Amino acid sequence: MILFKNITVLDKYGEIAENQFVTVKGSRIQSVGSTRPEGTFEREYDGKGKLLMPAFYNAHAHSPMTLMRGYGENLSLNDWLTDRIFPFEDQLDAGAVYWATLLAMAESFRYGIASSTDMYYFADSIAKAAVDCGAKLNLSRALVSFDEEEDMWKTVRFLEAKDLYEEFNGIGDGRIRIEMSLHAEYTSTPKLVSQLAEYARQIGAQVHVHVSETQAEVEACKGRHEGRTPVRYLSDLGLFDTKTTAAHCVWVESEDIDILSDKNVTVATCPVSNLKLASGVCNVPLLKEKGVAVAIGTDSAASNNGLNMLSDIKFFALLNKERRADPTLVTPKEAIEAATVIGAQAQGRTDCGRIAEGWRADLIVMDIAGPHMTPVHDLYNNLVYSASGSDIVLTMVDGRIVYENGNYPTIDLERVKSEVESAKNKILGALNA
Amino acid sequence: MILFKNITVLDKYGEIAENQFVTVKGSRIQSVGSTRPEGTFEREYDGKGKLLMPAFYNAHAHSPMTLMRGYGENLSLNDWLTDRIFPFEDQLDAGAVYWATLLAMAESFRYGIASSTDMYYFADSIAKAAVDCGAKLNLSRALVSFDEEEDMWKTVRFLEAKDLYEEFNGIGDGRIRIEMSLHAEYTSTPKLVSQLAEYARQIGAQVHVHVSETQAEVEACKGRHEGRTPVRYLSDLGLFDTKTTAAHCVWVESEDIDILSDKNVTVATCPVSNLKLASGVCNVPLLKEKGVAVAIGTDSAASNNGLNMLSDIKFFALLNKERRADPTLVTPKEAIEAATVIGAQAQGRTDCGRIAEGWRADLIVMDIAGPHMTPVHDLYNNLVYSASGSDIVLTMVDGRIVYENGNYPTIDLERVKSEVESAKNKILGALNA
Repeated sequence: MILFKNITVLDKYGEIAENQFVTVKGSRIQSVGSTRPEGTFEREYDGKGKLLMPAFYNAHAHSPMTLMRGYGENLSLNDWLTDRIFPFEDQLDAGAVYWATLLAMAESFRYGIASSTDMYYFADSIAKAAVDCGAKLNLSRALVSFDEEEDMWKTVRFLEAKDLYEEFNGIGDGRIRIEMSLHAEYTSTPKLVSQLAEYARQIGAQVHVHVSETQAEVEACKGRHEGRTPVRYLSDLGLFDTKTTAAHCVWVESEDIDILSDKNVTVATCPVSNLKLASGVCNVPLLKEKGVAVAIGTDSAASNNGLNMLSDIKFFALLNKERRADPTLVTPKEAIEAATVIGAQAQGRTDCGRIAEGWRADLIVMDIAGPHMTPVHDLYNNLVYSASGSDIVLTMVDGRIVYENGNYPTIDLERVKSEVESAKNKILGALNA
Repeated sequence: MILFKNITVLDKYGEIAENQFVTVKGSRIQSVGSTRPEGTFEREYDGKGKLLMPAFYNAHAHSPMTLMRGYGENLSLNDWLTDRIFPFEDQLDAGAVYWATLLAMAESFRYGIASSTDMYYFADSIAKAAVDCGAKLNLSRALVSFDEEEDMWKTVRFLEAKDLYEEFNGIGDGRIRIEMSLHAEYTSTPKLVSQLAEYARQIGAQVHVHVSETQAEVEACKGRHEGRTPVRYLSDLGLFDTKTTAAHCVWVESEDIDILSDKNVTVATCPVSNLKLASGVCNVPLLKEKGVAVAIGTDSAASNNGLNMLSDIKFFALLNKERRADPTLVTPKEAIEAATVIGAQAQGRTDCGRIAEGWRADLIVMDIAGPHMTPVHDLYNNLVYSASGSDIVLTMVDGRIVYENGNYPTIDLERVKSEVESAKNKILGALNA
């Protein structure tokens, strides 16, 4: 049992409370209060100059793409995918994906991310990596189909997704949650969408899908499907009938937003990736006004190029101020909630994302004593606009410390870096052969 | 004399060179090469897993405004200035400005900034703080006038600016350079602009001015001055006849860009501040295409809210990709140059901003071994998109280490934080009285 003492806390009401005492027992927060609880503790953590806050929940990620960090820069989305990412991905194997995922988890822990909503291939390797290092993951094997006649139930891809669900869903005390994912409208057929929606309903799995990331995608979808937008089309085919995370939603129209709201779809906005690939700026204030939950995703390390959630939070808080010409939009508190409790809810983790008795101990300790965090007029403002991801000095997932002061207790970082560099070189060698 | 050994270097050509040896003697770089120089050294710095690169030059700052970090958030530029910043500033005194400047310098050093182009009041306190901690500063006392008849030569403000120039220009082996600044077109009269331009020409001082930050500013200027934009108007009155830094330039028109180019004005773009106050996105690619030098400014800690240049570099590199719908715009190398050598040139520091023999030793050591910097497909890409400001582990100004691993050899940070907190509380007390 660990005691955080005399620490500033972002409490369950989202308020800043100073000089608090928080205890963690097993995977859960046991107590939060302003007086020291009785008893002895395995460890007492001195909270002077520190903030204890909920860890981050990354609502859209492709963890193994750390392998492609900085590979193929300054290209359009189409060129980036076609000339760089797809050929590189063709060379991936289970080992490369395992090590690249561990690298992503190390970076995630370093930047305070406890859990990621992840969509990729070789998903069993991703699951194993997450289990091995203690990360939480909402994971899915992305499904695609380009053959109108293809029967999903018989495809290897679906069987992999099904096996993944049966082998990993709920393991690690619920840390691993398996979802069903459709890669996107433009990489699928109506038959696949319907069949996947049917399966998700059968087993009660969450759905993860890329939606309306670019204007071109929306226009092409309308051309293919009687003028319907991706949101309308996917909704008509039943994809949103189980709890869904829709990544991007940059180019959603008024009717789309009503559908997302009616279907309780969470939008995972990826502000940095959407800038880098010149996709656009998601209209977060309008989505929220219409009742749509908005969480924050880093997207992959190939299009961000990192998993520094606090950096993405700053982009999230700033971009709509300028785009909608209104600096009152997106408050610091809204930004922090999007990256914490709303992200946790999007992942179906209803006991995660707040510092409250009985809730899961997914926690960050942040050093708030640096010159860049002084003075304090309002700690929320400093947290969103002034803090650096590296101010995070400790990350805990389900009560287990996974990062502290440059150390990764659950990951052999030197080995991981070496394995990733080898895998990268092997793939580049094959591509250049 | 210090030797950096076996270190990766961003060399004088802007290329990445591995396993280099760099020596610093006094304030200058003595040698750069791939073999170990002979001799013994006071200190040998092991460069394994590290990058040695030029320090940053912050092209637009108001250092003492660290006091107002996070004070007055989510407001329009006008409300922010009128309801928050101006009343707070009315309460400032020389002591508050001195300590707040030291806080800004600590943060600047922590984030690799060697030198800032700074404009504010109580400028002699700012200069003293910079001298005391070893920072470089291009400093000016901002001039304003709202009286068409007022004769600049007789104003206290001008006499302060003149005294500042005479007392501090060139001191500290040239680290302090005093400039003349006009706050902006909208806070001045034609007479002030002409007289200040005349004085700057007389003494050969550089000029610093806010230009075309908001659309409303440009429209109001046209109304006041026969349809002329701020750039046209200030140019007509001779303000750009000495070397000038024009901050913001978000709303410049085609003819403005030609003038800026003809007059060799450097634009200091402030991407984060311009988002936060909903001012707009400076068209960096177009300015560069027309031959205008573009450097990067943080603006103040009240509108950023920090001095984390590497964070601002990421915004700089990303914003125009999305705004101009072209992800090929603003390469990582261009972004780094804007924050280093172009910033140094804007400050008239012609022997700063590159790692080359005989140049000033304004240097950063960056830890490039973290998980977020792995793998390396292209180090520039990692530096701009993946690195964190906190990866900077050492900052050197004119050969003197001013930051290393959380320590500030030239600043008593605990005292500074305490003095700033006291000054803040005193001012808030007066405002609430």
